[in-house]
Amino acid sequence: MSDTLNLVMFSGTADKLHAAATLAAGAAAMDRPVNVLLQYWALDAFRTERLAESHGLAWDAMTEGTARPVNGTKSIPWLETFRMAKELGQVSILACSGSLDVLGIDVTTLDPIVDASGGIATFLMNAEDGQIVFI
Amino acid sequence: MSDTLNLVMFSGTADKLHAAATLAAGAAAMDRPVNVLLQYWALDAFRTERLAESHGLAWDAMTEGTARPVNGTKSIPWLETFRMAKELGQVSILACSGSLDVLGIDVTTLDPIVDASGGIATFLMNAEDGQIVFI
Amino acid sequence: MSDTLNLVMFSGTADKLHAAATLAAGAAAMDRPVNVLLQYWALDAFRTERLAESHGLAWDAMTEGTARPVNGTKSIPWLETFRMAKELGQVSILACSGSLDVLGIDVTTLDPIVDASGGIATFLMNAEDGQIVFI
Repeated sequence: MSDTLNLVMFSGTADKLHAAATLAAGAAAMDRPVNVLLQYWALDAFRTERLAESHGLAWDAMTEGTARPVNGTKSIPWLETFRMAKELGQVSILACSGSLDVLGIDVTTLDPIVDASGGIATFLMNAEDGQIVFI
Repeated sequence: MSDTLNLVMFSGTADKLHAAATLAAGAAAMDRPVNVLLQYWALDAFRTERLAESHGLAWDAMTEGTARPVNGTKSIPWLETFRMAKELGQVSILACSGSLDVLGIDVTTLDPIVDASGGIATFLMNAEDGQIVFI
Repeated sequence: MSDTLNLVMFSGTADKLHAAATLAAGAAAMDRPVNVLLQYWALDAFRTERLAESHGLAWDAMTEGTARPVNGTKSIPWLETFRMAKELGQVSILACSGSLDVLGIDVTTLDPIVDASGGIATFLMNAEDGQIVFI
């Protein structure tokens, strides 16, 4: 299987970043090309000055009845899992140029794990007929 | 590439509505048919009487450490981007009949940009083997 | 159409669980194999001792301007819809082994509707070139 796995990452909480990272690492380990597009809060999470901060959990963790079993979101290794994914295979990480504008930040403020900035059209062209997952 | 891009829109915050709209516009500009299914809070956002309201931001914008760089969610042009997508190509917007029931609203209360109401089966039939993105 | 529909379920609120269940049931009714991977809060929702609890609504229901038309999330029949999906067709539900570890729970604490536990690689292998939807 050589189809690309394409991830539109929108969310910036540690649990969703981790879910995206594990999908990327799993696909990379299976020799599938992985294309990531960072938007909004996921893009914000890759700012160099924010990497070490706690990124919180999804709203779902806060609703009534939930046991909130995850203590300390810093312990969720989302960034390490992305680094591992890059070592395992061909993983390209694109900062969405539109989201850079909305957030008022420059691509140089992001961790070097981000390869470049680009638009939706570039992402969709690379995605071809592979799967697209929005997280 | 003539494959359909299929969007199940569930979320009703301005940032996620905008993320969906940019994907729709990008695909439409590439001559790809786009099928949208509106559910729950995304459906609620297309109510005529709610279009002009502020729609807030995703929970991710509220978590600790986030700089909340987006001020004023009314400035996020999600509806205009959907109108542009419709002008650019073939974009069909379906109100999920099950969600209309759950929310207790009628399709006539929605903006005319919504083409019709229909069920999951109709959406999945139209989607064929194109990509499905849940936002 | 015999392509698989593959759902990565992450969210644990009743509305998103229901959205996932209706997609699973719709695809099963069309004779499509459905593979579900339960992660984080969706996994937590399938714990036997939590099934009868209220699971809340997505953050989108709480933002300003929303009419919150859904009263009582216990009335959203997400579990019944999953049981129906299983009766309609071939629906396999996998508990993500990594998420079991993060939440510190064992697969035996989950409702018997969950078929087994497994990893991302197993899920991606089963997904082949079918659609992947993250909810």
